[in-house]
Amino acid sequence: MWLQKEIRLRARARGFHLVTDEILQQFPELRQVRIGTLHIFIKHTSASLTINENADPTVRCDFERYFRQAVPDGAGYLQHRDEGPDDMPAHLKASLLGSSLTLPVSGGRPNLGTWQGVYLCEHREQGGSRTLVLTAHGE
Amino acid sequence: MWLQKEIRLRARARGFHLVTDEILQQFPELRQVRIGTLHIFIKHTSASLTINENADPTVRCDFERYFRQAVPDGAGYLQHRDEGPDDMPAHLKASLLGSSLTLPVSGGRPNLGTWQGVYLCEHREQGGSRTLVLTAHGE
Amino acid sequence: MWLQKEIRLRARARGFHLVTDEILQQFPELRQVRIGTLHIFIKHTSASLTINENADPTVRCDFERYFRQAVPDGAGYLQHRDEGPDDMPAHLKASLLGSSLTLPVSGGRPNLGTWQGVYLCEHREQGGSRTLVLTAHGE
Repeated sequence: MWLQKEIRLRARARGFHLVTDEILQQFPELRQVRIGTLHIFIKHTSASLTINENADPTVRCDFERYFRQAVPDGAGYLQHRDEGPDDMPAHLKASLLGSSLTLPVSGGRPNLGTWQGVYLCEHREQGGSRTLVLTAHGE
Repeated sequence: MWLQKEIRLRARARGFHLVTDEILQQFPELRQVRIGTLHIFIKHTSASLTINENADPTVRCDFERYFRQAVPDGAGYLQHRDEGPDDMPAHLKASLLGSSLTLPVSGGRPNLGTWQGVYLCEHREQGGSRTLVLTAHGE
Repeated sequence: MWLQKEIRLRARARGFHLVTDEILQQFPELRQVRIGTLHIFIKHTSASLTINENADPTVRCDFERYFRQAVPDGAGYLQHRDEGPDDMPAHLKASLLGSSLTLPVSGGRPNLGTWQGVYLCEHREQGGSRTLVLTAHGE
């Protein structure tokens, strides 16, 4: 069984956001998959996806703080600045974190650890709505 | 053909550890897969998985050295410290390295390069045993 | 339907290189896949794969500049130097960026965003030709 769908996530501020529920609500078909995988792909180069702690909001704030100092806006060694000082750092962060996730699916749900959730990592000041391709496959 | 199994890796010290054999020994069913993929997912947010050099132990030591200076314990810009100074850095390293791997499978074995092995990246001082979900799929 | 093939990418200079077309030209079988995924795996530990901006070459130059300062050649905290000052930094960059990509496939083509392309990230001065395992699966 193959299920594939494009969905949109609503626009969010720069930072790290829990989006597990927003994704699953738009993909009820996943409940049909007893054993399989769910692939989530973001069709952008200045936002990314990762899995991390789903409970304490301070964790998501610390992600933003860490990445602001690790890849500073407007760093002198960067040349690509067409869209402002957050442009090239956004591309770098997107590759450090990655454009896609593959999750195991068991019994119609992603088989995540108790403390795991899916983050949308929005690296632009004005990123707008983001498009994902969801591909589930299993039996 | 779908094969899915949860396994545990024995507790390890903070650092980077080769676990290719420990995983494969717990998943003999993989030998049935002639062409396919093996997805390995870690159900934790303070340990991660990566692929790297499987020969010289100095490489794994250098990984730990690099990540200790890139994401220092107790860095002043981090607020989430509930479980100590290695808590939030562990979350950051887990997302930099990633929670899952997908390996090609050919002839019943992961089709890795000669020098490639699977690393468990243990980012906590006392991480304990870690749970993986293995999902193999192929023909 | 499962399709699997090993291909070689021609040798490239240290840096970041768009290789989407070079990969697809060697894998015309992918056009048979209406819905599915394409897994691309690099069988090396000192080169990696990522997805990023496919238009402005300055972006790829900035990737190389960023990674040269984030993981400097010959950094004093690194011990593994068997093959020169770019040896251990190449391993670290390979794990930060990752050894594989999974792309959604729709209508016989990778379903990428308008501005997305596949990068070969060559972290060695003399990396030589690189081998990829392509695994497509779908219906």
